Amino acid sequence: MNSMRIGFIGLGAMGAGMAGNLLKAGHAVTVWNRSPAAAEALAKLGANVAKDARSVGEGVQVLHSMLANDAAVRAAILDSGVLDALPKAAVHVNHATLSVALVRELVEAHERRGLGYVAAPVFGRPDVAASGGLNIVAAGKADAMAKVLPLLEPLAGKVWPMGDDPVRANVVKIAGNFMIGAAIESMAEASALTRAHGVPAKDFLEVMTGSLFAAPVFKTYGGLIAEENYSPAGFKMSLGFKDIGLARSAAETERVPMPFASVLHDTLLEALAAGEADLDWSALAKVAARRAHIG
Amino acid sequence: MNSMRIGFIGLGAMGAGMAGNLLKAGHAVTVWNRSPAAAEALAKLGANVAKDARSVGEGVQVLHSMLANDAAVRAAILDSGVLDALPKAAVHVNHATLSVALVRELVEAHERRGLGYVAAPVFGRPDVAASGGLNIVAAGKADAMAKVLPLLEPLAGKVWPMGDDPVRANVVKIAGNFMIGAAIESMAEASALTRAHGVPAKDFLEVMTGSLFAAPVFKTYGGLIAEENYSPAGFKMSLGFKDIGLARSAAETERVPMPFASVLHDTLLEALAAGEADLDWSALAKVAARRAHIG
Amino acid sequence: MNSMRIGFIGLGAMGAGMAGNLLKAGHAVTVWNRSPAAAEALAKLGANVAKDARSVGEGVQVLHSMLANDAAVRAAILDSGVLDALPKAAVHVNHATLSVALVRELVEAHERRGLGYVAAPVFGRPDVAASGGLNIVAAGKADAMAKVLPLLEPLAGKVWPMGDDPVRANVVKIAGNFMIGAAIESMAEASALTRAHGVPAKDFLEVMTGSLFAAPVFKTYGGLIAEENYSPAGFKMSLGFKDIGLARSAAETERVPMPFASVLHDTLLEALAAGEADLDWSALAKVAARRAHIG
Amino acid sequence: MNSMRIGFIGLGAMGAGMAGNLLKAGHAVTVWNRSPAAAEALAKLGANVAKDARSVGEGVQVLHSMLANDAAVRAAILDSGVLDALPKAAVHVNHATLSVALVRELVEAHERRGLGYVAAPVFGRPDVAASGGLNIVAAGKADAMAKVLPLLEPLAGKVWPMGDDPVRANVVKIAGNFMIGAAIESMAEASALTRAHGVPAKDFLEVMTGSLFAAPVFKTYGGLIAEENYSPAGFKMSLGFKDIGLARSAAETERVPMPFASVLHDTLLEALAAGEADLDWSALAKVAARRAHIG
Repeated sequence: MNSMRIGFIGLGAMGAGMAGNLLKAGHAVTVWNRSPAAAEALAKLGANVAKDARSVGEGVQVLHSMLANDAAVRAAILDSGVLDALPKAAVHVNHATLSVALVRELVEAHERRGLGYVAAPVFGRPDVAASGGLNIVAAGKADAMAKVLPLLEPLAGKVWPMGDDPVRANVVKIAGNFMIGAAIESMAEASALTRAHGVPAKDFLEVMTGSLFAAPVFKTYGGLIAEENYSPAGFKMSLGFKDIGLARSAAETERVPMPFASVLHDTLLEALAAGEADLDWSALAKVAARRAHIG
Repeated sequence: MNSMRIGFIGLGAMGAGMAGNLLKAGHAVTVWNRSPAAAEALAKLGANVAKDARSVGEGVQVLHSMLANDAAVRAAILDSGVLDALPKAAVHVNHATLSVALVRELVEAHERRGLGYVAAPVFGRPDVAASGGLNIVAAGKADAMAKVLPLLEPLAGKVWPMGDDPVRANVVKIAGNFMIGAAIESMAEASALTRAHGVPAKDFLEVMTGSLFAAPVFKTYGGLIAEENYSPAGFKMSLGFKDIGLARSAAETERVPMPFASVLHDTLLEALAAGEADLDWSALAKVAARRAHIG
Repeated sequence: MNSMRIGFIGLGAMGAGMAGNLLKAGHAVTVWNRSPAAAEALAKLGANVAKDARSVGEGVQVLHSMLANDAAVRAAILDSGVLDALPKAAVHVNHATLSVALVRELVEAHERRGLGYVAAPVFGRPDVAASGGLNIVAAGKADAMAKVLPLLEPLAGKVWPMGDDPVRANVVKIAGNFMIGAAIESMAEASALTRAHGVPAKDFLEVMTGSLFAAPVFKTYGGLIAEENYSPAGFKMSLGFKDIGLARSAAETERVPMPFASVLHDTLLEALAAGEADLDWSALAKVAARRAHIG
Repeated sequence: MNSMRIGFIGLGAMGAGMAGNLLKAGHAVTVWNRSPAAAEALAKLGANVAKDARSVGEGVQVLHSMLANDAAVRAAILDSGVLDALPKAAVHVNHATLSVALVRELVEAHERRGLGYVAAPVFGRPDVAASGGLNIVAAGKADAMAKVLPLLEPLAGKVWPMGDDPVRANVVKIAGNFMIGAAIESMAEASALTRAHGVPAKDFLEVMTGSLFAAPVFKTYGGLIAEENYSPAGFKMSLGFKDIGLARSAAETERVPMPFASVLHDTLLEALAAGEADLDWSALAKVAARRAHIG
């Protein structure tokens, strides 16, 4: 394998594990994070710590970023100057879950500078990021993809190429996150129904997740609902609300009615109104139970 | 194993396979079906063919029934006289998906006659019934369950005991069928979203069912949506509509708001209005696409 | 005016006022009610009190009934024998709000006996019934309508003929009651929104009901919401829930998706779950406020 | 009456009529519009035509603006420099329907400059604007309101003071527009129901708008539905969609679930997907009929 000069911006719960895997794979990784502690930890594993986001771009062949949302990407990528610091023909592979609108803006900003751009959003929680088992959906022009795909190897259990338009990868990610929210709301309502008839959520979900719904999403979130284990959150209600907002925005631009997304919007809003922003979003089961006045 | 004298009423796509497995397990099975052809086929495998539903009850230790809905059960079980033909202490194990109200009526009708009653609804399609791989949720008084559980062995991949009140098994079945409908609608809306942004349903669903949603329900129905393979139906839209109606009725009696079930009610109604009653209910994907005016 | 021999079954809050107006108009009215007190009160105004529902039919030219729901009509009209007691060519004018299915059954039961049938459901609350200001929607065959229309004069502020099929009048009534429920939910959600932004419901509704929404439904129910005056109920939540159920059934038979009716079903269910069955159905405003966690 | 020196920005269908009424009331009005034709027309009635938006502010005591949306207000008021051209203690009365967020920004921008600010959104269509019969909801600090209220006289049939925080007036306007949309969707679904049962929308709506729903909103939009008179639009579907979006945004910031607004979002989106952006928003009746597959 070719050891490459890589930049990595964004070392939160997800990014720290991913940058670590790139180091373990033998690459020369220069890192930066808004709060420096995470960067220091990676320095111990051999990373170079840049003084700011811009400098991460100097001399690297591929820049990875794993940021939280549109605002973080706008600040650390578009406004920081890193795109101007990157060498010509360098490629930026962006792992964030973003709005379709911002992705279009990023594609243009990279093209204008002769830089490659690959959208590579990920499915998986922090433990899966650390163990290199993510599912990564990737899309971008062929030459950029060729540079990036080998770098996704140490990060992913599986890579899903989605064509040459980066927007396509983000749309798959957004639609997938919507399906996760729908799975949670489905278990929330079904559990409220069985509880009202004397069957505990745990007993019901055990049957479902042990048979027809034996899939990671249902086992993970169904387990949290069964145990009423909503804190600390694996994925916060406020982030779930943001993700459903991304789905609704993407739906709106293309005039796609999504009544399940509308229901999710309202039940998530109800959870936020109840002060549950920091609970795991499987706590939508509490909203369903409250509406039925089940203790 | 004890060979037992068993009755079996209802030899449709599901029941024929189940009765066949009881015969193969070495039991003496007496069968009856409204249209006689299916009974004749089982006679070749060693079944006795009763002349009417009532006579099935004569001299059997356990009566199985696998009927389509409330109306079929009312006719073949409550009105046929079979409960009066059954010997004292015989047990009826009812595999139908029924309303909670009817189950309560059945429990009382059996108790009044000193008969055991086990509700044992099943999850699985006809091919799974034939191969003895069903997931069966069973609930009833301890002594009735003791008689019935060995008979479920040749029918099921797994049996899930749900307590001593038969209603609990039906509630689990109803709630599970609701979750299947919700899974389909979720894939329908998500696919409409990705299609509107240029990503075919097939590409999107391949990622989902190959990772986070790698479960039988999603693989089966996601496959039908990806291939637009809605006919002949595995499970008709009209039956899906009936099942969601059972969930809504069960929710109504216990005052449980279920907004996802309400959305499903309306999208299924729209499919029926479009003349799609006989398509597989995964054709809800056509409704979502139509609403977005995607060809 | 011709004084006619009239029967009147059902002397609840609505029926008592209506029977009284027929007496005042100079007709010979024979009455019956399940609880006799209301009949006694009308006897003082000159009514004859029949000993049972059946006898009301003897010798009258027109039978009026003002009953609460399908079950009451089935008992007092179909099962009581009154249809067999009515003289040939007598007409029954039924003011109840009924399911479309029952109306079809009633039409057939009357035709079979050579009796006329007019569906004449009413809009208006008990005070309006007493003052003879109801809005009455009436439909039935021409000869039956000819007999009945003069009798509606003392009952109604306005009569709206709706053709020769009685079902049409009931459909208008059902759809109108749905619109009333939708008006209430609309004010409930709008008020929760303004309250959350510091504008009391009273101030907001005053503007609306004093301008764009200056109509009886909005003034009446908006006033109750503004004053939080939910008890004693003018029209109970449980009856509102029943009415929305009639709309949903009528929609289901003809495959008409009604998402607003689905929302109403769920918010009404939430109110019932909260123990608010006996509050006025304008208390849907409490449900909206609760969901937003507004005190 | 004191003749005042007034500026007026925004001379669309609504603003032209309003500016005209201020001229007729004897005030000295300086006008500006992005497309000059409307300004020329008012010059004939005695208006001064400013060369740009900024100059409108020079020397006036009160500036009125009647602009279409957030973007138009940002351009013509915040970015044009007019606020810096206004004399100290001048008051700006803004008639636009705006997001709560922008109103907060405007309040701060005016306070910082020592200018008064009154939010005075209006209810009524262009013909009502021309005849001076608008319903105007107004809120702002007491001294600013004192200057502005006399100027609203020639514009309004009625003025509704809503306190000293301009946001409150906009919230009332947003909530009122939501109620209009809900009224339309309610008539759309009710009409689809009656049509499916053989009662034309026209017959049904005639009863409703002639009795319980005898209010301007229902008579106007009900009339359009009854006649299927959707073009040319009185108020376009695309503008209705924008207004429901404002309600949803306002609801989101305060965590107020609004399921009726969610349904409206999806049915309006469906209309836009069908290419109906330029039809009157009463054409939501076509969406309801289409979903039921009624011709």
